[in-house]
Amino acid sequence: MAFNTETQAGVCLEPDAVTQDYVFNHSMLRIKDPQRSLDFYSRVLGMRLLRRLDFAEGKFSLYFLAMTKGEAVPEDVAERQRYTFGRQSVLELTHNWGSEHDDTQYHNGNKEPRGFGHICFAVPDVQAACARFEALGVNYVKRLEQGSMRNIAFITDPDGYWIEIVQPSLNGEIGRA
Amino acid sequence: MAFNTETQAGVCLEPDAVTQDYVFNHSMLRIKDPQRSLDFYSRVLGMRLLRRLDFAEGKFSLYFLAMTKGEAVPEDVAERQRYTFGRQSVLELTHNWGSEHDDTQYHNGNKEPRGFGHICFAVPDVQAACARFEALGVNYVKRLEQGSMRNIAFITDPDGYWIEIVQPSLNGEIGRA
Repeated sequence: MAFNTETQAGVCLEPDAVTQDYVFNHSMLRIKDPQRSLDFYSRVLGMRLLRRLDFAEGKFSLYFLAMTKGEAVPEDVAERQRYTFGRQSVLELTHNWGSEHDDTQYHNGNKEPRGFGHICFAVPDVQAACARFEALGVNYVKRLEQGSMRNIAFITDPDGYWIEIVQPSLNGEIGRA
Repeated sequence: MAFNTETQAGVCLEPDAVTQDYVFNHSMLRIKDPQRSLDFYSRVLGMRLLRRLDFAEGKFSLYFLAMTKGEAVPEDVAERQRYTFGRQSVLELTHNWGSEHDDTQYHNGNKEPRGFGHICFAVPDVQAACARFEALGVNYVKRLEQGSMRNIAFITDPDGYWIEIVQPSLNGEIGRA
């Protein structure tokens, strides 16, 4: 069987076997204030702080979070740090010390100059999840009932980064000709 | 046991149980040219194209890629699409039609205005992976031997987005006081 399910100009059908031990580990976003971001990602989205790393020379800290349902997270610090760098779907938040007290505002990538767009969480029940976000006072870019895609919402994190909310069972058909 | 391994101002130790069925599904980056990006992410990094979605009205296409080692990817299209929206560590690439022929250049978030920083791949042998990237002509932001962190490299994708390359077994100690 060819490696790729979908063929498309550019797609390599037989990549070097060594690549198959690579892991897409994390995405990094800069944040202004770790206290408000950690509150949001842990309380609103249920992420777990796996590891904080401090770099005094560069005056920054890194916070690594993930959804860990059903996974045994190592208690030993060095082991947990290796686990953090080796697993899938980690979110790294970078805090440059002092930004919570100055006028730092980060760019979410969705106005010029554009680039990065959003992160996305899948939820089992998008109506229930969005009602919960409303009750928690979360900001919306797009509510379910807005626009043409009624199964998808976009909320924002405390820095204004967009977070798409999808329900996989409702999205087997979108975008299909 | 408290939910979080690391406690920190802001961290919620007992998040709402419903959040534990949420999945951090994907990160989205805009790309200029799908052919060159699909070549890079499949041939250089070994990602598999799970699904392409076309939106004629909005004149854009979405490409969803993931590392799928050892996973059974559904062949049925609707089932595969639900799988794509439900699994971890997906990379979504957004192509606004025509950008490959005009002067579109996307912003990688690492010069002003800053925000998003990078994505990261974990590899079993960072020396071997970096030698392979060199042989393939991949561009570097930081080679292993540059700077103070000798176990970490940064390469770029075809749009200039930064990709960190780490070897988890070598990174159990960085950032520790």
